[in-house]
Parts: sequence; structure tokens; C-alpha cells
Amino acid sequence: MEKFRHFTIGDNGHLIFGGIDSEDLIKEYGTPSYFLDVSYIESVCNAYKNAYIRSEMLGSISYASKALSCKEIYRIMNNQETFIDVVSGGELFTALSVDFPAEKIFFHGNNKTDEELDFAIKSHVGMIVIDSYEEAEKIQKIAEKYALTQKVMIRINPGVEAHTHHYIQTAKVDSKFGFSISNGEAERIIKFTLDKSNLMLTGLHCHIGSQIFEKKSFLIAVEKMASFYYELNKKYGLILNELNLGGGFGIWYSEGDIEFSVSDYTDMLTDVLLKVKDEFNAKNLYIPTVYFEPGRSIVGEAGITFYKVGSVKRIPNIKNYIAVDGGMFENPRFALYQAKYTVKNPLKMTEKGIEKFTVAGKCCESGDLIAEDVILPETKAGDYLCVFSTGAYNYSMASNYNRNPVPPVIFVKDKKSYYAVKKQTYSDIIRNDV
Amino acid sequence: MEKFRHFTIGDNGHLIFGGIDSEDLIKEYGTPSYFLDVSYIESVCNAYKNAYIRSEMLGSISYASKALSCKEIYRIMNNQETFIDVVSGGELFTALSVDFPAEKIFFHGNNKTDEELDFAIKSHVGMIVIDSYEEAEKIQKIAEKYALTQKVMIRINPGVEAHTHHYIQTAKVDSKFGFSISNGEAERIIKFTLDKSNLMLTGLHCHIGSQIFEKKSFLIAVEKMASFYYELNKKYGLILNELNLGGGFGIWYSEGDIEFSVSDYTDMLTDVLLKVKDEFNAKNLYIPTVYFEPGRSIVGEAGITFYKVGSVKRIPNIKNYIAVDGGMFENPRFALYQAKYTVKNPLKMTEKGIEKFTVAGKCCESGDLIAEDVILPETKAGDYLCVFSTGAYNYSMASNYNRNPVPPVIFVKDKKSYYAVKKQTYSDIIRNDV
Repeated sequence: MEKFRHFTIGDNGHLIFGGIDSEDLIKEYGTPSYFLDVSYIESVCNAYKNAYIRSEMLGSISYASKALSCKEIYRIMNNQETFIDVVSGGELFTALSVDFPAEKIFFHGNNKTDEELDFAIKSHVGMIVIDSYEEAEKIQKIAEKYALTQKVMIRINPGVEAHTHHYIQTAKVDSKFGFSISNGEAERIIKFTLDKSNLMLTGLHCHIGSQIFEKKSFLIAVEKMASFYYELNKKYGLILNELNLGGGFGIWYSEGDIEFSVSDYTDMLTDVLLKVKDEFNAKNLYIPTVYFEPGRSIVGEAGITFYKVGSVKRIPNIKNYIAVDGGMFENPRFALYQAKYTVKNPLKMTEKGIEKFTVAGKCCESGDLIAEDVILPETKAGDYLCVFSTGAYNYSMASNYNRNPVPPVIFVKDKKSYYAVKKQTYSDIIRNDV
Repeated sequence: MEKFRHFTIGDNGHLIFGGIDSEDLIKEYGTPSYFLDVSYIESVCNAYKNAYIRSEMLGSISYASKALSCKEIYRIMNNQETFIDVVSGGELFTALSVDFPAEKIFFHGNNKTDEELDFAIKSHVGMIVIDSYEEAEKIQKIAEKYALTQKVMIRINPGVEAHTHHYIQTAKVDSKFGFSISNGEAERIIKFTLDKSNLMLTGLHCHIGSQIFEKKSFLIAVEKMASFYYELNKKYGLILNELNLGGGFGIWYSEGDIEFSVSDYTDMLTDVLLKVKDEFNAKNLYIPTVYFEPGRSIVGEAGITFYKVGSVKRIPNIKNYIAVDGGMFENPRFALYQAKYTVKNPLKMTEKGIEKFTVAGKCCESGDLIAEDVILPETKAGDYLCVFSTGAYNYSMASNYNRNPVPPVIFVKDKKSYYAVKKQTYSDIIRNDV
């Protein structure tokens, strides 16, 4: 059987998704629609878990659910026995609504509101990652009110910024997140936090970037964090039992991108975990429990979006457009980041491309494109297209721009498909209109 | 009383919005929240209506509701007796749900789906603006099914592209919208449409850009459209009674922007309408009924967003951040277009700014900013900020990114405030989760 990435292609030339002919999925669920392959999600979770086993390190991955948040993904992560990250009251509410264990939840964000912090603390979330002085004060106040001790981490900028093949070491971190080691701000907020009687500081958090395939950047971050833990130990006798290295492992989107297999994720994380062991051992420090926060790499390549072609417009000597029934309301990543995607006809996977197209969405905006320079076989209105690697930051960023309904999210496992999120109706859209 | 743009400032230094002290609005509705001043909306509608009166031309403005679509805005437009534009089944559904007259609705879009066209035609929308051959065929089929004749226009690219101070004349229109006059495509689709027995072609539509303050670009577009009407008349004896000139009049967002008053809109549109009269008269053509489609200019400056400051973070020698309780989920225009906005403390309107800030949102993404280089008086957590000119393309582009709830939309008129759209709850967000 022919393959395309981790998908198979049927003898009829159709893409097989989670064991099901994509034509059957399109017939059953219509377009536009998001699909996720649960087996792929589970295989990446297992790949990461293997890294902990191989490195003989304590800790867990914590699924960064901002990549894709819905009840069903939290159920799956609960079955996988991972931790999860949430970044808002809405994500927390969703996770708790399916009884995800609160103690396995990290709460992130540069500006958690009073209401969100109150909700998180009274729900007994396991960990809040502090990102400002004001937040430390608020958590103290709320924890005091509930007579609780709240476990916290602090978000630190170790001075490494990474993206795909590149990383830089910089003291000038200008992000809205975290506190820099280099300018003394990290040390200052740590002391501030240690003084709060209802906060228990268990460790530090850092996040160095996204779409990273370069192991070296993580190893440097580990070195810097270990040196900082050492300094804090020498200066204040502080022992921190935990370390959170954030997320950022990359995925394949389009030709020319690095193609990681799930076992590559195991290898990369294993090396990072072993580096933690080495560095902390070398400094005679307590080996921390290590958390790692993959989001995109767990759900990204598990996802695909199906579209129907509405029109094909050829502007002689300029450009050919295909208009599909989706657009920036359900995938704003081209509009936001000029993100690249791979587009194919799921029912003609083995046919050669013969013509170049720009794939446009249906929103009333010139910048509403899905992908450029897409080579496709003969294409006409009524055909179907699929876009790969849409599992992360597609449904989660969807809007009702132009009052288009958010497409459904369908999960596929063991040749069975089921709704994780039902399609929005027009009535849903106007529900809050007065 | 001091003024700021079309707002007044109270003796207490507070911004007065729609006659109400902004502190009272914040107390009643919380933050983040969108507010719109109905009187401003009405004054711009009147300004445009005056242009039709002054120029003694037939026609109407047609509110481009993609700028802000909700039941209440359609009620207001109905009271104003304007036409409206919709660009999706969702907008159409919203308008019809408050009994907006279908015959005064233009239906736009580069890829209206089969379901949307069926819905529009059976609802008797006044006009469908055709944007592809496939669409002309679909409309014919559906109109035939319902035994109706559907009035249509065709979207034309006259070869003028305008933005703010600049315009270019170009034959190379590479937009996903419309058909160019210069390459003969416009003529071809017109003939194709005329052959369809259930379509009645009443005129042509063009749209030359957005944020335009340069009258000249519209006058050139009128010349080109008049010449094309003339050519069609000579060649085919075709008489088109209507002309739709699209939208695009600009608004003020921030310092350095052109500051139009509502009467400037009257002046600009009057000149454009008179130009239509002159050109069509000079060519001995039937003077068409002219439609003009303002969206942003009607609701943009009517709107304001209030935020609460969650934290102030100073990175020595690099940058100062203010984090507010909104962000790209409720105003993605900085993330999408690096759009500029004016930010002030609504309770300190008369105080001098003393420090420069980057205003960041609460989403877990470095690019989640609202504005840069904002000079403010002393600012601390708990303070409030307001962002001006958020009436257009803010609520309409809002998402649940990070599962943040969409803020409420409150309309203010005659010193009274009321919900146009209620705040989304967490339960709303997970409603379609299975």
C-alpha cells in the first residue's frame, strides 16, 4: 500500500484516514470539517512517555491544550495519564467538565484574571505558573481566602530563543512572558514569591520557542536552568524539586520541512532528559521531576481538514484561484503568519499535479488564503481538497468571521469516526444576540 | 467641555461615551467589553444619505455588515432605511431573524456555497453579486427550481486599487474577487450571465480598496465603469440601470491618520455621485441607481473597547508591557495586519502621558499585542484602558482562541446602554463539545 507521511492510500487512489476511506468521511460529515486521527495522538504520547522510561527520569509530558481544546482531547489525555496545560478559565472549565484530575493541571498565562485565578485555586489545580508580581500577590490572597497552599512555578527566560533550525543566545529577551535570569529579574520574583506564605514554589518553567527541531537549543536551555538552580541553591539554600522545560517540538507542514517520525520525538526528548540528569548530577543538585509541554507535536499532524471546491478562477498570465468552502475563519494561520500547508485532492492522491493554484477561502477579504503555489491534478467545482497538519491551532483559533459557522471536529479511531465537536449552526451564532 | 475626536471629556477627566461616564459603563458591564455609540452610527448614515440628496441621485448606501454583524445593527439599519450587504448564510440568517427586508439585501462573496445560495434565493434577497461562472450556473439552477427570476450584479475589477493616500491604475488585478475589464474576462462573464434565463442582470459592482481618503481613486473608478457601461451599450445594446461602487471610505485609528468628520463623508460621496451623473450624461447613458457600501466608516469610530490592566512588567532598558484582559481573541487586527490603535486611560483623559508601553493581550502567544508605543499616565494593575475605533472588524473577527469567551457588545444611545450581544459564558464555549 502506498503511503503519504503516516497515512495510507487506497488502491482507488483515495486517502485513507484512520483506516477509513476519506470519501466516506466526506460523505458522512460534509465540508469544511476537521478530522483527527486518535491513534496518531496516542502514538506521539507514547513516544514521549518512552523518553521518560529510556532516560529513567521522573516526570511527565503535559499536553499544551491551547493547540486543541475540547472535552474529547482531555478525555484522551486522561486515558494517556499525562498532565495538561491550560491557559484560561475556558480551557480549565472544559477539562474539569470531563473530570480531568485538577492536580495534574498546569495553569499558564501572562495575564490570568482575578476570576480565573479564583476558579483555578478553588478547583485545586496542581500548579500555577506565575508570570508577574501582581499575579503572585493575587494567588497569595486567594489561597489565603481558601486556606490553601498553592503550588507554583515561575516562568523564566533563560536567554535562549529557538525556531526550527536556528537558535540564538540572548540576554535581551523582550517577550511579554517571564523573567530574565540575565538582568536579575528572575531572582527578584523568586524571592518575592518565597516570601508569600500560601505559595509553595516547587520549580521553574521556561519555554524557548516553537517549531523547534534543533536539540542543541534545548540542551543549552537545560544548562542555563541547571546553573540557575545551582546559584539559587548556593545563595539561598533553595531546593527546587521540579523543572518545566515548556514545549516547542516541531511538526511537518509542507515540502522542505523536516519530517520527524514519532520515534524522533522519543530520541529528542530522551537526550534532553539525560542532559538534565547530567547537568544536575554534575552540580550535585537534586535531580528534578521534569515536565515537558508538547501541544502542536501531539495533535498537529494528527489533523486534516477537508474542503469542497466552489469555483476555479483563472486570471490569464497572473494567477489561478481555487475557492474552497473554508478560509481564515477556520484556519487563520496563513493570514496570521503566512503559514505553509500541503494541499491535495484526497480522492486523487496518486495523480500527478498539472496546474498551480492559490487556494482561497470564502471570506470577504483578499488576504483570506489557505495556501499558495499548490500543484494539483485537474480540478473543478465540486472536487474535494484536503489540507494536512491542521490538528493544532486551527479549530482552537476558529472564529465566526463573516458569521461563518465553526466546522465540526471529528475524531477517528479503529476505523470508527465520531464527533468531538458538533458543527456550529446559525442559531448557535446568534444565540447571544439580543 | 473638552473633546477627544467626537467624544466629550467630563470635568472629572473621564471619557464620556454616548452621554455616559465611562466609569459607570465599566462598573455595569465589566471588561473586556465592546461599546458602540448609536448616535454616531446614525450620524454617519445621515451624512451618506445627505450625499444622495445633494447630488440628486437615486440609490442608497448598503451597510457592509461584515464590519459588525448582530441583530441590533440590522434593526438600526432598518430604521435608517438603508440597504445592507451580507457575505454569508450566517449574516443573512441574522438579518432575516429581525425581519430586515430581504429585497434590500445584497449577497456578496467569492465562494457562496450551494446551501447559502439556496437559502438566499428562496428568501428572495434583492441582489446577488456574482463572482464566478460556477456561481452564475448555480443561481440559474436554484432560481429555476423555485421558478424565480433572481436579480444579479457581477463583480468587476475596473483596474484601480486604492488605499489611504495612494491609488494605482493597473491591468494586473490578481485578487480572488471579480473579473477584469482589461483582459476581457468581465465581458465574457456578462455574456455568460445574460444567457441565463432566470437571472436578471441589473448592473455591475466594483470595490477598489479599503481605508481610502483619496477621492480621485473613486472618480477614476467611475470613469472606467462608465466607459465599460458605454461599451456594453454600443456592442450589445445592453442597458444596466444600476451601479454598485463598493465601499472603502477610511476612518481614524491613531495619530497621523486623516481625521474625517461625518460631513467629510457627505462631501466625498457627493462628489463621487456627481461624477457618476456627469460621466453617464456625457455618454448619453441612462443614469444608474447607485449603491455604495460603507461598513467600517459607519461603525468603526462608533466603537470603543474597555480593558482592565492585569499587570505592568518593565524589562529594564528594553520594553514596558501592560497586560490587559483582552487580546487577539477579541481584536486580532494587530496580529493580522500590525494595525495601529489609540489607547488611553478613560478615567485620566486629561492627564499627560509619562511612560511608553506595549499593550499586550492575555493569549499565550508572543504576537498577541493590542498596540505598541503607547504613552500613558502612571499605570498599575487594576487601572482601565480604552482602545478607540474598534467598532469594525473587532467583534466580527472575535474567536475563542485559548477558549477565552467573546466579550459582550453594548450599544449606547440617549444616555442609555443596552446589550446588543451578551457576554459568552464558558458553557456557551463547550456547548457543541461532545
